[in-house]
Amino acid sequence: MATEKLASWAVNLSYSSLPPEVIQAAVSSFYNWVGCAIGGALHPTTTTASEALTPFFGKATSSLLGQKGARTDASHAALINGIASHVHDYDDTHLSTIIHPTGPVASALFAQAEALGGVKGDDFILALVAGIEAECKLGMGVWPKHYDIGWHITSTVGSIGAAVAVGKLMRLERTSMQHAISIAATQVTGLRDMFGTDTKSFHVGRAAQNGLLAAVLAARGYTGSLQAIEAKRGWARVVSTENNVDDQLATLGTEWEIARNAFKPFPCGIVVHPVIDGCIQLHREMGAEGGRTAADIERVEVRVHPLVLELTGKKTPQDGLQAKFSVYHGGAIGLVLGKAGPAQYEDQVVLSKEIVTVRDKISATADESLGADEAKITVYLKNGTTLTKHVQHAIGSVEVPMTPAQLEEKFVDQASVVLGAQGAQSVSKVCWALQGSANVAALV
Amino acid sequence: MATEKLASWAVNLSYSSLPPEVIQAAVSSFYNWVGCAIGGALHPTTTTASEALTPFFGKATSSLLGQKGARTDASHAALINGIASHVHDYDDTHLSTIIHPTGPVASALFAQAEALGGVKGDDFILALVAGIEAECKLGMGVWPKHYDIGWHITSTVGSIGAAVAVGKLMRLERTSMQHAISIAATQVTGLRDMFGTDTKSFHVGRAAQNGLLAAVLAARGYTGSLQAIEAKRGWARVVSTENNVDDQLATLGTEWEIARNAFKPFPCGIVVHPVIDGCIQLHREMGAEGGRTAADIERVEVRVHPLVLELTGKKTPQDGLQAKFSVYHGGAIGLVLGKAGPAQYEDQVVLSKEIVTVRDKISATADESLGADEAKITVYLKNGTTLTKHVQHAIGSVEVPMTPAQLEEKFVDQASVVLGAQGAQSVSKVCWALQGSANVAALV
Repeated sequence: MATEKLASWAVNLSYSSLPPEVIQAAVSSFYNWVGCAIGGALHPTTTTASEALTPFFGKATSSLLGQKGARTDASHAALINGIASHVHDYDDTHLSTIIHPTGPVASALFAQAEALGGVKGDDFILALVAGIEAECKLGMGVWPKHYDIGWHITSTVGSIGAAVAVGKLMRLERTSMQHAISIAATQVTGLRDMFGTDTKSFHVGRAAQNGLLAAVLAARGYTGSLQAIEAKRGWARVVSTENNVDDQLATLGTEWEIARNAFKPFPCGIVVHPVIDGCIQLHREMGAEGGRTAADIERVEVRVHPLVLELTGKKTPQDGLQAKFSVYHGGAIGLVLGKAGPAQYEDQVVLSKEIVTVRDKISATADESLGADEAKITVYLKNGTTLTKHVQHAIGSVEVPMTPAQLEEKFVDQASVVLGAQGAQSVSKVCWALQGSANVAALV
Repeated sequence: MATEKLASWAVNLSYSSLPPEVIQAAVSSFYNWVGCAIGGALHPTTTTASEALTPFFGKATSSLLGQKGARTDASHAALINGIASHVHDYDDTHLSTIIHPTGPVASALFAQAEALGGVKGDDFILALVAGIEAECKLGMGVWPKHYDIGWHITSTVGSIGAAVAVGKLMRLERTSMQHAISIAATQVTGLRDMFGTDTKSFHVGRAAQNGLLAAVLAARGYTGSLQAIEAKRGWARVVSTENNVDDQLATLGTEWEIARNAFKPFPCGIVVHPVIDGCIQLHREMGAEGGRTAADIERVEVRVHPLVLELTGKKTPQDGLQAKFSVYHGGAIGLVLGKAGPAQYEDQVVLSKEIVTVRDKISATADESLGADEAKITVYLKNGTTLTKHVQHAIGSVEVPMTPAQLEEKFVDQASVVLGAQGAQSVSKVCWALQGSANVAALV
């Protein structure tokens, strides 16, 4: 009875039952989502969708984040903000399933919260937690077969997470919540074959729309199957060849997936993160030790998990997109600039002489004894000195989470490009204040 | 190269290359779709969706058929008309895949044609044919495994058919058409577990929306995978365990699936049709032979394919919905009323004494020697006479298609309930005139 179990849990979840670390994780997840959505607002994948769909836009109740106060109906806002939040691949990650959990859920929830009006921050947090737990537990229930088959798990479970979140916000009773889950589950959106195209981030936005639509229909009495998840021809069996959904749902409310949500410090493939982390630390140490800079570097040796070279072994990236798949560029910006934000992945940085010079001095070797979030870096300086760094867990992992200050730097870095520095700081401040807010619509 | 093959074929298809029987089939398919969409316009599954989604409705460019001139944006019109056209399970059937082909395709196409304005009837027919061939060939390519797994094939392939049709109408070039196919393919909507709920017809409308969205995005340069159908983790492999898509696409333009499209004469499960057909013929013969009526009947014996009793063996249906699954009700309305339209499935008819009396005199026996579209009926009259009827192929099958006059009776029967008799006749007349029409938007 997975569908009933999930619906029942979500309907009965109360704010007072949320542990403090869960509330904190929800605030951080929301905060990081807003930063990513603003940061992706001007990306062509976002603006093209927005322009193409303008003829369908309805009554303007909900914000298009980072688009100068532009508003549209809640369904299109969910779609466009969802696309924007994922387009730089810079959003959050539930590491045990590689679901990006907040995009589908918050994009639907925030758009509907604005449309409804007067939604309190705590009610928003409660709905966000319900939606993220739902999608991550279901995702764990079909992982890894579901992903292996070729489904983009973020959006396939994201539709259901978004439905649960919006359903919770709209206070659906249990049976209606089952129908909402069902109507979302039948819209299975996202093939991995789309990776590398505009459609990858479209999946996130469409999942948000699917879930919002499901909840809004169910709230009016629309019916789906009451056993949509577990039926003989239900979601779990159709989208995966194996599942342990029941086991996963048994831990709802005792093991919180949102507390395991991780935030990317760098806008590139997560396997490059240990190298970047180590190189940024080495940049600081070189500066601290007698003002050394990257110009003093003779050569650099990097040892990494084999997957790193398989996925990100591009030696001479020619633009920002290719640079995301280059451990060499990642190391170089860390060493030269001490930073790896969106600005360091701009085309002109990727092709700049100072970066290319250091990039070409880096050699990388696969080392099966290392974990995927681990790296060993040795910098040989021209004066004969060597510096070494062993990153055991990269920043942004569950073991070494980003601090609030680091999250804020990431937020402001992204939002400044769109809103200017002052605007970014001001939105940052109000978004941190989600908990206890009287009206979440006032946040942006 | 299935994606490229399909896109290329659709882009190059010209009206002059369509055989006359294909054009005729397209006109009949469109005509039958309009009748079904009007006939389903007032069903609660349609009106609930319409009411729930009103807050999202955009600029009114496109008609909600049968809703007194109501209009909305093309995307929502595609959804709502798609739901309406399928809600009575009275639409068309591509018998070798049991796809209902016109719902997803025409719902998207007509809504977009109205929004674009000035679309000629012949261009509409051309796009409709392209979309229907695309969905049926892809459907045959994954049939039957895809359906066995649990996918509602009408909507899963319908999304792609709708994208091809709208893409054709918008004159996409080949690469854009590949992207449109791709963006549609990644939105896999429809689990069979939803059968028997509002969500079954939602699938048809959502498929129309998915396809329209895909085409509109692709027209603006949005990218998906260029190998979405055939890739290692592409559509065919993800949604089916076996496929022969390439073989099916090889017959594009030489074997026309739309010419195999069948129309339901009766608004109930297709397996009951041979019995209804035979009973209507017996009703006429009893009348012709000395004015006998159902009141003269002692008992009736029916022999049918075993599936008929498995699917429609309900002996004492209590309302119209249950009656759709009762071969006994089907036989009774044929014998008593000589007709089996939507009016004969109203609750009060199902419970009326004259129908119940005859219904209870019918016994049905499974006979493995009979085909699924075959039935043998023997009526024993009180005066000792017996009448027999052997229906070899039910009306509405490929072997015994509905005549234009019968299609028109079906159309008027459905549309009259919503538009009144005169309105129904007048819409019927203009819809028959699709070919050569200067502006399809003027049809409704």
